[in-house]
Amino acid sequence: MSTNPTHITAPDGTPFIEVVREFDAPVALVFRASTDPDLVARWLGPRELTMRVVEFDAQAGGRYRYVHTAPDGGEYSFRGVFHTVTEPLMIQTFEFEGAPGSVSLETRTLDDIGGRTRMHQNAVFPSVAARDQALAAGMEHGITDSMDRLAELLGSGAVRQIG
Amino acid sequence: MSTNPTHITAPDGTPFIEVVREFDAPVALVFRASTDPDLVARWLGPRELTMRVVEFDAQAGGRYRYVHTAPDGGEYSFRGVFHTVTEPLMIQTFEFEGAPGSVSLETRTLDDIGGRTRMHQNAVFPSVAARDQALAAGMEHGITDSMDRLAELLGSGAVRQIG
Repeated sequence: MSTNPTHITAPDGTPFIEVVREFDAPVALVFRASTDPDLVARWLGPRELTMRVVEFDAQAGGRYRYVHTAPDGGEYSFRGVFHTVTEPLMIQTFEFEGAPGSVSLETRTLDDIGGRTRMHQNAVFPSVAARDQALAAGMEHGITDSMDRLAELLGSGAVRQIG
Repeated sequence: MSTNPTHITAPDGTPFIEVVREFDAPVALVFRASTDPDLVARWLGPRELTMRVVEFDAQAGGRYRYVHTAPDGGEYSFRGVFHTVTEPLMIQTFEFEGAPGSVSLETRTLDDIGGRTRMHQNAVFPSVAARDQALAAGMEHGITDSMDRLAELLGSGAVRQIG
Protein backbone atom coordinates (compact mmCIF):
# COMPACT_ATOMS: atom_id res chain seq x y z
CA MET A 1 0.00 0.00 0.00
CA SER A 2 1.40 3.37 -0.97
CA THR A 3 1.43 6.09 1.65
CA ASN A 4 0.57 9.67 0.83
CA PRO A 5 2.87 12.26 2.39
CA THR A 6 1.74 14.58 5.19
CA HIS A 7 2.81 18.16 4.57
CA ILE A 8 3.28 20.13 7.79
CA THR A 9 4.09 23.84 7.60
CA ALA A 10 4.91 25.94 10.65
CA PRO A 11 6.70 29.14 9.56
CA ASP A 12 9.08 30.68 12.10
CA GLY A 13 7.61 33.59 14.02
CA THR A 14 3.98 32.68 13.33
CA PRO A 15 1.39 30.95 15.55
CA PHE A 16 0.27 28.61 12.76
CA ILE A 17 0.60 24.91 12.04
CA GLU A 18 -0.81 23.95 8.64
CA VAL A 19 -1.32 20.32 7.65
CA VAL A 20 -2.22 19.03 4.20
CA ARG A 21 -2.81 15.36 3.51
CA GLU A 22 -4.58 13.40 0.80
CA PHE A 23 -6.55 10.22 1.44
CA ASP A 24 -7.57 7.53 -1.05
CA ALA A 25 -11.15 7.63 0.22
CA PRO A 26 -14.17 9.85 -0.33
CA VAL A 27 -14.88 12.90 1.82
CA ALA A 28 -17.88 11.27 3.53
CA LEU A 29 -15.73 8.45 4.92
CA VAL A 30 -12.93 10.74 6.09
CA PHE A 31 -15.54 12.93 7.78
CA ARG A 32 -17.15 9.95 9.44
CA ALA A 33 -13.79 8.67 10.72
CA SER A 34 -13.27 12.15 12.23
CA THR A 35 -16.61 12.42 14.03
CA ASP A 36 -17.36 8.89 15.29
CA PRO A 37 -15.55 8.48 18.64
CA ASP A 38 -15.09 4.71 18.21
CA LEU A 39 -13.28 5.38 14.93
CA VAL A 40 -11.34 8.41 16.18
CA ALA A 41 -9.94 6.27 19.00
CA ARG A 42 -8.36 4.02 16.34
CA TRP A 43 -6.19 6.66 14.65
CA LEU A 44 -5.77 9.87 16.66
CA GLY A 45 -2.34 10.26 18.21
CA PRO A 46 1.09 8.67 18.08
CA ARG A 47 1.22 4.89 17.47
CA GLU A 48 2.95 4.14 20.76
CA LEU A 49 0.09 5.58 22.83
CA THR A 50 -3.29 4.09 23.56
CA MET A 51 -6.31 6.35 23.50
CA ARG A 52 -9.31 6.38 25.81
CA VAL A 53 -12.19 8.62 24.78
CA VAL A 54 -13.92 10.12 27.84
CA GLU A 55 -16.42 12.16 25.83
CA PHE A 56 -16.71 13.08 22.17
CA ASP A 57 -19.89 14.84 21.17
CA ALA A 58 -19.16 15.94 17.60
CA GLN A 59 -21.71 18.73 17.14
CA ALA A 60 -21.66 22.51 17.59
CA GLY A 61 -21.35 23.09 21.32
CA GLY A 62 -20.38 19.49 21.99
CA ARG A 63 -17.33 18.77 24.09
CA TYR A 64 -14.59 16.19 23.77
CA ARG A 65 -11.98 14.84 26.13
CA TYR A 66 -9.56 11.96 25.69
CA VAL A 67 -6.57 10.46 27.45
CA HIS A 68 -3.45 9.09 25.77
CA THR A 69 -1.51 6.55 27.80
CA ALA A 70 2.18 5.86 27.13
CA PRO A 71 3.88 2.46 27.57
CA ASP A 72 5.42 3.76 30.83
CA GLY A 73 1.93 4.55 32.17
CA GLY A 74 2.21 8.29 31.68
CA GLU A 75 -1.10 9.92 30.80
CA TYR A 76 -1.71 12.94 28.56
CA SER A 77 -5.20 14.42 28.52
CA PHE A 78 -6.73 16.72 25.92
CA ARG A 79 -10.04 18.50 25.76
CA GLY A 80 -11.96 20.96 23.63
CA VAL A 81 -15.29 22.02 22.21
CA PHE A 82 -16.70 21.82 18.71
CA HIS A 83 -17.66 25.12 17.08
CA THR A 84 -18.71 23.70 13.69
CA VAL A 85 -19.26 20.09 12.63
CA THR A 86 -20.88 20.24 9.20
CA GLU A 87 -19.46 18.06 6.45
CA PRO A 88 -16.94 18.89 5.05
CA LEU A 89 -15.94 21.38 7.78
CA MET A 90 -14.87 20.92 11.41
CA ILE A 91 -13.80 23.77 13.69
CA GLN A 92 -12.82 22.97 17.26
CA THR A 93 -10.73 24.14 20.18
CA PHE A 94 -7.82 22.05 21.48
CA GLU A 95 -6.14 22.14 24.88
CA PHE A 96 -3.45 19.93 26.36
CA GLU A 97 -4.38 19.74 30.02
CA GLY A 98 -0.66 19.67 30.86
CA ALA A 99 -0.41 23.25 29.52
CA PRO A 100 -3.75 24.68 30.66
CA GLY A 101 -4.91 28.02 29.31
CA SER A 102 -2.93 27.63 26.07
CA VAL A 103 -5.82 26.79 23.78
CA SER A 104 -5.53 26.49 20.01
CA LEU A 105 -8.23 26.57 17.36
CA GLU A 106 -8.33 23.99 14.56
CA THR A 107 -10.14 24.50 11.28
CA ARG A 108 -10.26 21.35 9.15
CA THR A 109 -11.68 21.24 5.64
CA LEU A 110 -12.09 18.20 3.40
CA ASP A 111 -12.02 18.82 -0.36
CA ASP A 112 -13.23 16.29 -2.88
CA ILE A 113 -10.57 15.60 -5.50
CA GLY A 114 -12.21 13.16 -7.88
CA GLY A 115 -13.55 10.76 -5.29
CA ARG A 116 -10.48 11.11 -3.10
CA THR A 117 -10.00 13.65 -0.29
CA ARG A 118 -7.59 16.45 0.39
CA MET A 119 -7.61 17.45 4.07
CA HIS A 120 -6.37 20.86 5.07
CA GLN A 121 -6.00 21.61 8.75
CA ASN A 122 -5.14 25.03 10.13
CA ALA A 123 -4.21 25.27 13.79
CA VAL A 124 -3.60 28.66 15.37
CA PHE A 125 -2.29 29.34 18.87
CA PRO A 126 -2.77 32.41 21.09
CA SER A 127 0.93 33.27 20.71
CA VAL A 128 4.01 32.29 18.74
CA ALA A 129 5.53 30.98 21.98
CA ALA A 130 2.55 28.67 22.58
CA ARG A 131 2.86 27.33 19.02
CA ASP A 132 6.59 26.77 19.49
CA GLN A 133 5.92 24.95 22.76
CA ALA A 134 3.47 22.60 21.03
CA LEU A 135 6.05 21.83 18.33
CA ALA A 136 8.73 21.25 20.96
CA ALA A 137 6.40 18.79 22.70
CA GLY A 138 6.34 16.61 19.59
CA MET A 139 3.15 17.73 17.88
CA GLU A 140 4.54 17.06 14.39
CA HIS A 141 5.22 13.42 15.26
CA GLY A 142 1.69 13.05 16.59
CA ILE A 143 0.20 14.60 13.46
CA THR A 144 2.20 12.43 11.07
CA ASP A 145 1.36 9.24 12.93
CA SER A 146 -2.30 10.23 13.12
CA MET A 147 -2.56 10.90 9.39
CA ASP A 148 -0.87 7.60 8.51
CA ARG A 149 -3.07 5.68 10.94
CA LEU A 150 -6.20 7.34 9.54
CA ALA A 151 -5.15 6.33 6.03
CA GLU A 152 -4.65 2.73 7.21
CA LEU A 153 -8.06 2.69 8.91
CA LEU A 154 -9.71 4.02 5.75
CA GLY A 155 -7.86 1.40 3.70
CA SER A 156 -8.96 -1.41 6.01
CA GLY A 157 -12.61 -1.07 5.08
CA ALA A 158 -13.61 -0.51 8.72
CA VAL A 159 -15.16 2.87 7.92
CA ARG A 160 -18.44 2.42 6.09
CA GLN A 161 -20.88 4.84 4.57
CA ILE A 162 -24.05 5.32 6.60
CA GLY A 163 -27.40 5.37 4.85
CA MET B 1 -16.48 60.14 35.81
CA SER B 2 -13.02 59.47 34.45
CA THR B 3 -12.70 56.94 31.65
CA ASN B 4 -9.86 54.46 31.54
CA PRO B 5 -8.25 54.05 28.12
CA THR B 6 -8.63 50.89 26.03
CA HIS B 7 -5.33 49.75 24.57
CA ILE B 8 -5.74 47.81 21.33
CA THR B 9 -2.69 46.26 19.69
CA ALA B 10 -2.79 44.56 16.29
CA PRO B 11 0.74 44.32 14.87
CA ASP B 12 1.03 44.25 11.08
CA GLY B 13 1.52 40.80 9.63
CA THR B 14 0.17 38.94 12.66
CA PRO B 15 -3.25 37.33 13.26
CA PHE B 16 -3.58 38.87 16.75
CA ILE B 17 -5.70 41.56 18.33
CA GLU B 18 -4.73 42.27 21.94
CA VAL B 19 -6.91 44.41 24.19
CA VAL B 20 -5.99 45.71 27.64
CA ARG B 21 -8.41 47.70 29.76
CA GLU B 22 -8.70 48.51 33.45
CA PHE B 23 -12.01 48.75 35.29
CA ASP B 24 -12.73 50.45 38.60
CA ALA B 25 -14.55 47.37 39.88
CA PRO B 26 -13.51 44.04 41.37
CA VAL B 27 -12.83 40.96 39.23
CA ALA B 28 -15.99 39.18 40.43
CA LEU B 29 -18.24 41.93 39.09
CA VAL B 30 -16.44 42.20 35.74
CA PHE B 31 -16.68 38.43 35.40
CA ARG B 32 -20.39 38.46 36.24
CA ALA B 33 -21.06 41.23 33.71
CA SER B 34 -19.30 39.03 31.12
CA THR B 35 -21.24 35.83 31.81
CA ASP B 36 -24.82 36.95 32.59
CA PRO B 37 -26.62 37.35 29.24
CA ASP B 38 -28.94 40.08 30.55
CA LEU B 39 -25.88 42.11 31.53
CA VAL B 40 -23.86 41.29 28.42
CA ALA B 41 -26.73 42.63 26.27
CA ARG B 42 -26.25 46.03 27.96
CA TRP B 43 -22.63 46.60 26.93
CA LEU B 44 -21.39 44.29 24.14
CA GLY B 45 -21.04 46.03 20.81
CA PRO B 46 -21.05 49.52 19.33
CA ARG B 47 -23.39 52.05 20.97
CA GLU B 48 -25.42 52.64 17.83
CA LEU B 49 -26.53 48.99 17.61
CA THR B 50 -29.09 47.18 19.70
CA MET B 51 -28.34 43.66 20.84
CA ARG B 52 -30.65 40.69 21.04
CA VAL B 53 -29.27 37.60 22.75
CA VAL B 54 -30.59 34.41 21.14
CA GLU B 55 -28.64 32.06 23.41
CA PHE B 56 -25.80 32.58 25.87
CA ASP B 57 -24.88 29.55 27.93
CA ALA B 58 -21.66 30.64 29.64
CA GLN B 59 -20.14 27.29 30.57
CA ALA B 60 -17.65 24.92 28.92
CA GLY B 61 -19.44 23.53 25.87
CA GLY B 62 -22.17 26.13 26.04
CA ARG B 63 -23.05 28.07 22.93
CA TYR B 64 -23.88 31.71 22.37
CA ARG B 65 -25.52 33.59 19.55
CA TYR B 66 -26.61 37.22 19.36
CA VAL B 67 -27.87 39.68 16.79
CA HIS B 68 -26.88 43.33 16.52
CA THR B 69 -29.38 45.58 14.76
CA ALA B 70 -28.34 48.89 13.20
CA PRO B 71 -30.55 52.00 13.01
CA ASP B 72 -31.15 51.23 9.31
CA GLY B 73 -32.47 47.78 10.23
CA GLY B 74 -29.36 45.91 9.12
CA GLU B 75 -28.66 42.83 11.22
CA TYR B 76 -25.28 41.35 12.15
CA SER B 77 -25.23 37.95 13.83
CA PHE B 78 -22.44 36.36 15.81
CA ARG B 79 -22.03 32.95 17.35
CA GLY B 80 -19.53 30.82 19.20
CA VAL B 81 -18.91 28.26 21.90
CA PHE B 82 -17.32 28.56 25.31
CA HIS B 83 -14.22 26.46 25.93
CA THR B 84 -13.49 27.70 29.46
CA VAL B 85 -15.63 29.80 31.79
CA THR B 86 -13.89 29.71 35.17
CA GLU B 87 -13.34 32.98 37.01
CA PRO B 88 -11.11 34.80 36.16
CA LEU B 89 -10.67 33.11 32.75
CA MET B 90 -12.93 32.92 29.67
CA ILE B 91 -11.94 31.23 26.42
CA GLN B 92 -14.41 31.18 23.56
CA THR B 93 -14.73 31.01 19.79
CA PHE B 94 -16.17 33.92 17.79
CA GLU B 95 -17.68 33.91 14.32
CA PHE B 96 -19.39 36.68 12.38
CA GLU B 97 -22.05 34.86 10.42
CA GLY B 98 -21.49 37.30 7.55
CA ALA B 99 -17.99 35.81 7.12
CA PRO B 100 -18.68 32.15 7.88
CA GLY B 101 -15.77 29.79 8.38
CA SER B 102 -13.45 32.57 9.61
CA VAL B 103 -13.53 31.75 13.30
CA SER B 104 -11.34 33.42 15.90
CA LEU B 105 -10.47 32.35 19.42
CA GLU B 106 -10.64 34.77 22.35
CA THR B 107 -8.80 34.26 25.63
CA ARG B 108 -9.83 36.78 28.29
CA THR B 109 -8.16 37.03 31.70
CA LEU B 110 -9.10 39.30 34.57
CA ASP B 111 -6.33 40.27 36.98
CA ASP B 112 -6.99 41.76 40.38
CA ILE B 113 -5.05 45.00 40.85
CA GLY B 114 -5.86 46.08 44.37
CA GLY B 115 -9.61 45.62 44.19
CA ARG B 116 -9.78 46.93 40.63
CA THR B 117 -9.52 44.80 37.48
CA ARG B 118 -7.17 44.64 34.53
CA MET B 119 -8.72 42.78 31.60
CA HIS B 120 -6.47 41.28 28.95
CA GLN B 121 -8.09 39.84 25.87
CA ASN B 122 -6.19 37.97 23.17
CA ALA B 123 -7.98 37.25 19.92
CA VAL B 124 -6.32 35.13 17.27
CA PHE B 125 -7.59 34.48 13.75
CA PRO B 126 -6.87 31.55 11.41
CA SER B 127 -4.88 33.84 9.10
CA VAL B 128 -3.44 37.35 8.95
CA ALA B 129 -5.93 38.13 6.15
CA ALA B 130 -8.87 37.12 8.36
CA ARG B 131 -7.57 39.36 11.16
CA ASP B 132 -7.13 42.26 8.72
CA GLN B 133 -10.66 41.74 7.44
CA ALA B 134 -12.05 41.94 10.98
CA LEU B 135 -10.15 45.19 11.58
CA ALA B 136 -11.38 46.60 8.26
CA ALA B 137 -14.95 45.76 9.31
CA GLY B 138 -14.62 48.09 12.30
CA MET B 139 -13.74 45.68 15.07
CA GLU B 140 -11.64 48.29 16.93
CA HIS B 141 -14.61 50.66 17.14
CA GLY B 142 -16.78 47.87 18.50
CA ILE B 143 -14.18 46.92 21.10
CA THR B 144 -13.66 50.50 22.32
CA ASP B 145 -17.39 51.15 22.61
CA SER B 146 -17.89 47.82 24.39
CA MET B 147 -15.21 48.51 26.96
CA ASP B 148 -16.54 52.02 27.69
CA ARG B 149 -20.10 50.73 27.97
CA LEU B 150 -18.99 47.94 30.31
CA ALA B 151 -17.24 50.52 32.52
CA GLU B 152 -20.42 52.61 32.60
CA LEU B 153 -22.54 49.58 33.50
CA LEU B 154 -20.14 48.65 36.31
CA GLY B 155 -20.20 52.26 37.53
CA SER B 156 -24.02 52.37 37.54
CA GLY B 157 -24.28 49.82 40.33
CA ALA B 158 -26.44 47.53 38.16
CA VAL B 159 -23.96 44.64 38.51
CA ARG B 160 -24.16 43.16 41.99
CA GLN B 161 -22.21 40.47 43.72
CA ILE B 162 -24.08 37.19 44.06
CA GLY B 163 -24.02 35.34 47.35
